[in-house]
Amino acid sequence: MTAPLKYSDAGVSIDTWNTVKGRIGELVASTYNSHVSGKFGQFGGMFDVSFLKGMDSPILVSSTDSVGTKVKIAFDTKVYNSVGMDIVNHCVGDILVMGARPLFFLDYIGINKLIPEVAEQIVEGLANACRMNDCVLIGGETAEMPDIYGVGEFDLVGTIVGVVDKEKVIDGASIRAGDVVIGLRSSGLHTNGFSLARKIVTEVGKKKYSDIFEDGKTFGQTLLEPHRSYIKLFPLIDKGIVKGCVHITGGGFVDNIDRVLPLDCDAVINTGAWTPLPIFQYLQKTGGVESAEMYRTFNMGVGMVVIVAQEDADSILRDDGVAGFEPVVIGEIVPGSGSVKI
Amino acid sequence: MTAPLKYSDAGVSIDTWNTVKGRIGELVASTYNSHVSGKFGQFGGMFDVSFLKGMDSPILVSSTDSVGTKVKIAFDTKVYNSVGMDIVNHCVGDILVMGARPLFFLDYIGINKLIPEVAEQIVEGLANACRMNDCVLIGGETAEMPDIYGVGEFDLVGTIVGVVDKEKVIDGASIRAGDVVIGLRSSGLHTNGFSLARKIVTEVGKKKYSDIFEDGKTFGQTLLEPHRSYIKLFPLIDKGIVKGCVHITGGGFVDNIDRVLPLDCDAVINTGAWTPLPIFQYLQKTGGVESAEMYRTFNMGVGMVVIVAQEDADSILRDDGVAGFEPVVIGEIVPGSGSVKI
Repeated sequence: MTAPLKYSDAGVSIDTWNTVKGRIGELVASTYNSHVSGKFGQFGGMFDVSFLKGMDSPILVSSTDSVGTKVKIAFDTKVYNSVGMDIVNHCVGDILVMGARPLFFLDYIGINKLIPEVAEQIVEGLANACRMNDCVLIGGETAEMPDIYGVGEFDLVGTIVGVVDKEKVIDGASIRAGDVVIGLRSSGLHTNGFSLARKIVTEVGKKKYSDIFEDGKTFGQTLLEPHRSYIKLFPLIDKGIVKGCVHITGGGFVDNIDRVLPLDCDAVINTGAWTPLPIFQYLQKTGGVESAEMYRTFNMGVGMVVIVAQEDADSILRDDGVAGFEPVVIGEIVPGSGSVKI
Repeated sequence: MTAPLKYSDAGVSIDTWNTVKGRIGELVASTYNSHVSGKFGQFGGMFDVSFLKGMDSPILVSSTDSVGTKVKIAFDTKVYNSVGMDIVNHCVGDILVMGARPLFFLDYIGINKLIPEVAEQIVEGLANACRMNDCVLIGGETAEMPDIYGVGEFDLVGTIVGVVDKEKVIDGASIRAGDVVIGLRSSGLHTNGFSLARKIVTEVGKKKYSDIFEDGKTFGQTLLEPHRSYIKLFPLIDKGIVKGCVHITGGGFVDNIDRVLPLDCDAVINTGAWTPLPIFQYLQKTGGVESAEMYRTFNMGVGMVVIVAQEDADSILRDDGVAGFEPVVIGEIVPGSGSVKI
């Protein structure tokens, strides 16, 4: 006679979740502001948007994404808070480029087995980044799926919702030949190109993530460097001089800048205008990667691009709020057909 | 000499995505309504909520989830549209229980390798369900991660945002002893309990998904039966007589109904009030699963529960709009401590 089957026999433990939800509830609550209605643990997160009535035409801008295979480095190094920060800051960037400020964020962790310390570290990173961006962590889900995810592995997905008044949407429509393309520094790879980067570092370069890179940090630390938040660009955005704003994510320069270009303009990027971060130089040299492929895969040290009129460029380059992002002119807009020339 | 490394060498193809995005764009656009602002392929999806200004205190209600390991059956049977419908209808249920109507939805597909036919089938299911629920598919992301997902495998995650006026939020606060618990039929397992169900069917029952179940369909078809949408409950919800509404999801009856109970009430569920769908009877018998475990893991044929005052129960049981869900009294509210007795 066999014992009766229980849900936990299939690898899913409801009780483990009940153990960690207290600590996770505290972290989540640390992101709450006065707009939060309801309480942790309901079917849906509730966010009061009565304040939108003060806007002319409020537009909700939303985006969903994961940190990609950056999680593989988290698995190997057992550092999990940085990917939590990554996904929030990445999503913030995706709606900021349209002029939208974040309202709230939801996370999804699909995981082999719910390990309390891992879940808490991830949520700690999420909550820290949410607080920094004044974005409420309004909901989330952790799904144990031992048949989908490998031992010690997970995928981390985030969804953000923000708002912008319709007349302030940044959509690139006013971009004209003669405009200036300004690059703002990234902190590292952010969340893109990790499949290739991991292959180069571990297979071609034969490095371990605990080996020391030339910047004095380990390869693991350098690769896991959290995605920078560009939330501090808002005073600049509020001035209304940003014609186009581009988050350099998957697809690099080529497949992102074209998303804001009018059909009669090209962007010409002068890659000599800045020096890529050392990790990108290492990846290119070690992997023997062609330049065009590098700029189509990685951010190369430029995580965000703003396009402004010539007469506004100087004020941005000298703007105190933007100073931390080390702005530099990296190209110009010329007559063309909506494409990007590197 | 080795060839220079490219991003596609690491298993990620930007070109494949460029091939499928046309068809996917069409499916996505089929869900659009007059609130959609902007166009497909921007960094964030734009949804105009100017109409919220007509509400007293609009509350955005959001939720994120996956279909769990139901996807494993999709992999085995190579039927992918039903899980697309599942995740939309599941999310609709999670915010409907709070009184919120869906506005828009975002999907995330983390996948081993982007196979155009698979992605298109999934998005077809998403788009069909979105249209049925008058919910815009405003954004999404497909991430190829061959190092995270097995060959032919993926995880499917959805996020929904809906709205309810604050005074119409259903939160269970008015539930009192003497109220009636009404169950509405599910179409099958919906999205929960699949880790255990798969184990019982394939390992204990030694069945293939192509084998015929007693309902005349294959096990695969019966298990993949899409999650029902309860959107048609809104005329009833709008009457303001629903005191509590519960989506029977992960945690079954025990860990869901308690989410709406006041601390001085218990819900007593009479499992003899309805006959579980044949698939649940098969799972219990074949797996030798104890009854308590069944009602903690599966919906047992009841996908949604509404709690109303005694005097309103009859009108609901006779309501034409609710008729399709075969409503039946399955229990009552008694003095207690916020727990559920099966």
